[in-house]
Amino acid sequence: MKEVIAIVRINMMNQTKRALTDCGVDAFFAHEAHGRGKGFVNPRILEGVEHGYEEAASLLGEKGKLYPKRLLTAVVEDSMVGCVVDTIINTNQTGMPGDGKVFVLPLKNAIRVRTGETGEKAIV
Amino acid sequence: MKEVIAIVRINMMNQTKRALTDCGVDAFFAHEAHGRGKGFVNPRILEGVEHGYEEAASLLGEKGKLYPKRLLTAVVEDSMVGCVVDTIINTNQTGMPGDGKVFVLPLKNAIRVRTGETGEKAIV
Amino acid sequence: MKEVIAIVRINMMNQTKRALTDCGVDAFFAHEAHGRGKGFVNPRILEGVEHGYEEAASLLGEKGKLYPKRLLTAVVEDSMVGCVVDTIINTNQTGMPGDGKVFVLPLKNAIRVRTGETGEKAIV
Repeated sequence: MKEVIAIVRINMMNQTKRALTDCGVDAFFAHEAHGRGKGFVNPRILEGVEHGYEEAASLLGEKGKLYPKRLLTAVVEDSMVGCVVDTIINTNQTGMPGDGKVFVLPLKNAIRVRTGETGEKAIV
Repeated sequence: MKEVIAIVRINMMNQTKRALTDCGVDAFFAHEAHGRGKGFVNPRILEGVEHGYEEAASLLGEKGKLYPKRLLTAVVEDSMVGCVVDTIINTNQTGMPGDGKVFVLPLKNAIRVRTGETGEKAIV
Repeated sequence: MKEVIAIVRINMMNQTKRALTDCGVDAFFAHEAHGRGKGFVNPRILEGVEHGYEEAASLLGEKGKLYPKRLLTAVVEDSMVGCVVDTIINTNQTGMPGDGKVFVLPLKNAIRVRTGETGEKAIV
């Protein structure tokens, strides 16, 4: 089992959820996060710089500004990780900075509270 | 050391916190999340279907809708994991869909910022 | 690669982000959390107890109250973990309870959605 965490654009959440459901993953949870990636530059700032706005140019040098994102977490069997990651990439890839990241974490165990089932039984 | 993540009903947070404290875990953090499990069906929708409401019936087929939940994370020694998981199950198990999940993740290290202590010393 | 999670005071977020950026980490995400550590006591409650307020004394016994915190997550190469942890400690250590915790988790993989790059290429 693995925990797959996807950081995606806010407006891509519904599409990503639908794509994951089609892929057979229908247990996941989501929360709000603010993030930035290496080299992330807001396209509107770049546009502003091209038009000669000083304020935009100063923003270009700003590091550490975080943008609102959504974090989607799914716990899946090992055999599903490839499909899940591909689905997230296919759904979210625009080629523009800010497309997001996917992280795959090891998981020791999962337990379904309603039944007490553990391991893969708890997630399928 | 392990990271134990519990996804529970919003109204079960206080009881779960108290139960964990009684169990000897008194360092944890919580945040809001939206989630769904496989086969989660809102009981009020089921009720609506029984009463013949078409809208409820159409909702039954809906996949991907996320419900507000609470996420509770505790970092505990290996020897505590069993007790913590049992406590979460005992406190949250109603037998109804939506009781939640528990995930156990491996942890490489923990550091208490105030003292610089690492490993188990940082969490006990 | 490791996932480094820091739980810090709300008012330390900007300083921590800047310090991490200076340390060469410029991809991270943040979210709100509520937490408590073992032995956390609000200094204002202690003050109240010293002044003989019964209400404050009763709060001293209260367990499970969670305080608003910020959670900052960075995914970094193994060689960066030491620097990142030291930076978080140096920035956040006041010596007072509530300074926070750092957790280091193993990571199986990271993927940059924009390019499909995996592993360390996805995070540098």
